[in-house]
Amino acid sequence: MRVEYINPFVTSLKNAFKTMLACEARRGEIALKENNCAKHYVSGVIGLSGRTVGTVVLSFSEAVALKAASTMLMTETTAINEDVLDAVGELTNMVAGAAKSELEEFELQVSLPNVVTGHNHEIHFPSNVVPISISFETDWGPLTLEVGFAPVPEPVCA
Amino acid sequence: MRVEYINPFVTSLKNAFKTMLACEARRGEIALKENNCAKHYVSGVIGLSGRTVGTVVLSFSEAVALKAASTMLMTETTAINEDVLDAVGELTNMVAGAAKSELEEFELQVSLPNVVTGHNHEIHFPSNVVPISISFETDWGPLTLEVGFAPVPEPVCA
Repeated sequence: MRVEYINPFVTSLKNAFKTMLACEARRGEIALKENNCAKHYVSGVIGLSGRTVGTVVLSFSEAVALKAASTMLMTETTAINEDVLDAVGELTNMVAGAAKSELEEFELQVSLPNVVTGHNHEIHFPSNVVPISISFETDWGPLTLEVGFAPVPEPVCA
Repeated sequence: MRVEYINPFVTSLKNAFKTMLACEARRGEIALKENNCAKHYVSGVIGLSGRTVGTVVLSFSEAVALKAASTMLMTETTAINEDVLDAVGELTNMVAGAAKSELEEFELQVSLPNVVTGHNHEIHFPSNVVPISISFETDWGPLTLEVGFAPVPEPVCA
């Protein structure tokens, strides 16, 4: 996966946090994902398909999920309930949806957002896919964005 | 979600188990998913997009995942490793891929298969989506198929 494919997702995440949540998401480390352990408790997952296939994973601590959902729902929420999970799914959908329009060459469509919960859950990519993982800091706590695309064959020059 | 949309996935699961694994998957209960708790330890997850969006989840116990992977890899495998996770992802991909061609009206594409592991992990659908869950029995143990599609507006008659 070419590193520049991650940039639209970084931009859309920062924009979504700024405009929807009035929260600055400060980009931290970028890494090739070395192990599969989701670093946080709640993960939004959405598939991408078109001229390539991929997945976007947005992982939050419970604290960040609760703060984000409380802001989106305009009501203080103190437990991970269905509304919070819907908010995390919707954020994931927005991040993937905004980014895909910047990757026109792939003619991507997004699938349904699902949200995985569970301490120590891991979200594995196929072993031929090396997802890129980027950590972000917010005033609410940390979060992680992971994006992985299936390998696209290099164009053959005539 | 109309119940008949599940049938192609049931057929493709039974076919995949029969042809790839020489294992009969006997269909058990069908249910609207009432809680989000994945019943098993390993879940293959793949997105669908086209004229609607959806997700297919295939959940196994560790025992079924190991037996299925051992058969696909033609080597006895006794621990959940990367090869087993790839095999679960590939099975999920095959089940979704074969079923989508039976649902031509939606012009579906499948995304990348991901595999979630973790005791007590839960895979949540958006609250406006009611996935259908079907349990299967095999000689290796039980597994569960879940399919959820976003609501499709009913056609308006003129």
